[in-house]
Amino acid sequence: MRLAELSRRSGVSTATIKYYLREGLLPPGERVSTTQAEYDEEHLRRLRLIRALIHVGRVPVATAREVLAALEDENEDHLSRLGTAVAALPVTPAAPEEGPAAEVARRTAEELQRRLGWRVVPSNPAHRSLVAALTALVRLGYPCDTDRLLPHGRLAAELAAHEVALIEDFEAPTTQLEAAVALTVLYEPVLLSLRRLAQAEEAARRFGHRE
Amino acid sequence: MRLAELSRRSGVSTATIKYYLREGLLPPGERVSTTQAEYDEEHLRRLRLIRALIHVGRVPVATAREVLAALEDENEDHLSRLGTAVAALPVTPAAPEEGPAAEVARRTAEELQRRLGWRVVPSNPAHRSLVAALTALVRLGYPCDTDRLLPHGRLAAELAAHEVALIEDFEAPTTQLEAAVALTVLYEPVLLSLRRLAQAEEAARRFGHRE
Repeated sequence: MRLAELSRRSGVSTATIKYYLREGLLPPGERVSTTQAEYDEEHLRRLRLIRALIHVGRVPVATAREVLAALEDENEDHLSRLGTAVAALPVTPAAPEEGPAAEVARRTAEELQRRLGWRVVPSNPAHRSLVAALTALVRLGYPCDTDRLLPHGRLAAELAAHEVALIEDFEAPTTQLEAAVALTVLYEPVLLSLRRLAQAEEAARRFGHRE
Repeated sequence: MRLAELSRRSGVSTATIKYYLREGLLPPGERVSTTQAEYDEEHLRRLRLIRALIHVGRVPVATAREVLAALEDENEDHLSRLGTAVAALPVTPAAPEEGPAAEVARRTAEELQRRLGWRVVPSNPAHRSLVAALTALVRLGYPCDTDRLLPHGRLAAELAAHEVALIEDFEAPTTQLEAAVALTVLYEPVLLSLRRLAQAEEAARRFGHRE
């Protein structure tokens, strides 16, 4: 298909598609003349992923390029590509924490993961953001012990099992990798919205005195 | 206690405490001379909540003021105060969505909540952010039907039940309200970090071929 059709089918303006091409987010089409190129279904799928990353995940363009490059790294097996791509996705910003509260948080994060049967990988950005989140709880004097956090971890594990199963519905391994990255980003606001709605329901059930 | 001690015990600089006082986030202390005021445990607790909102939740100062005012509104019962305060907390920004994808998303969001036994409150900001998140999934052609989303909803309900139970450990009703707001904000990055770590575990289990 030509640029105009790619734009129509993806809902992305031709100017934005050209920008993604220039920035190396989208691989070039096949040149058919000096001014025209031909695009295929893979371009359409890739555009969908770029939009998920940039417009929903608010991922900076440079990060999106890094994520996409990781997915295409043919020197790596699928799991490593997925790991690198997902690790590049931004989590809650986490400056390295220091001091006694950070020490308690680090021990809690490690014990929690061990009790869940997970491997502890301190270099994983999600591990660092967990330590940062727990450090805030400790510093502010809110409950933060593994017993209280274990249900969160168990629910996260159930959620991950469900989400990975959804990804298996996608066919080719590359498409599965793309879907894994897209759904990591796209289901995050779904989960947070549902948590807020569930809290309102639960609060009404426990503290409500009126219909 | 004097300002210096409040600063020492809270870990918040005196300049920042003065800023919170000027902005009306922290109620004034009791004047003991023209230049000195006396603060109590309630100031300390309130400072803890302000820091959770502003430093961890990245809530703007004006929003924090709104949340704190809602908690203190003595014309309302506890549930309404909590509802107003939590509704004022930012969720994923959600512009009102229009068009066929938004229509599908809206129907899905409503059906999902009905199947979970939740009330549908379209004015709840979390409802709007759910619709926006689902609209993105629909537009990008990723799976988004109530059957696939139901496990997310059920897990969110379990999470909310656990989180509300944690809040009941706090004593006075006012302290419970404060804890509810603080933990809504503080557990969000904990949950998102755990989800990422759980995904890495689950991916290794399903797609991994090496130890």
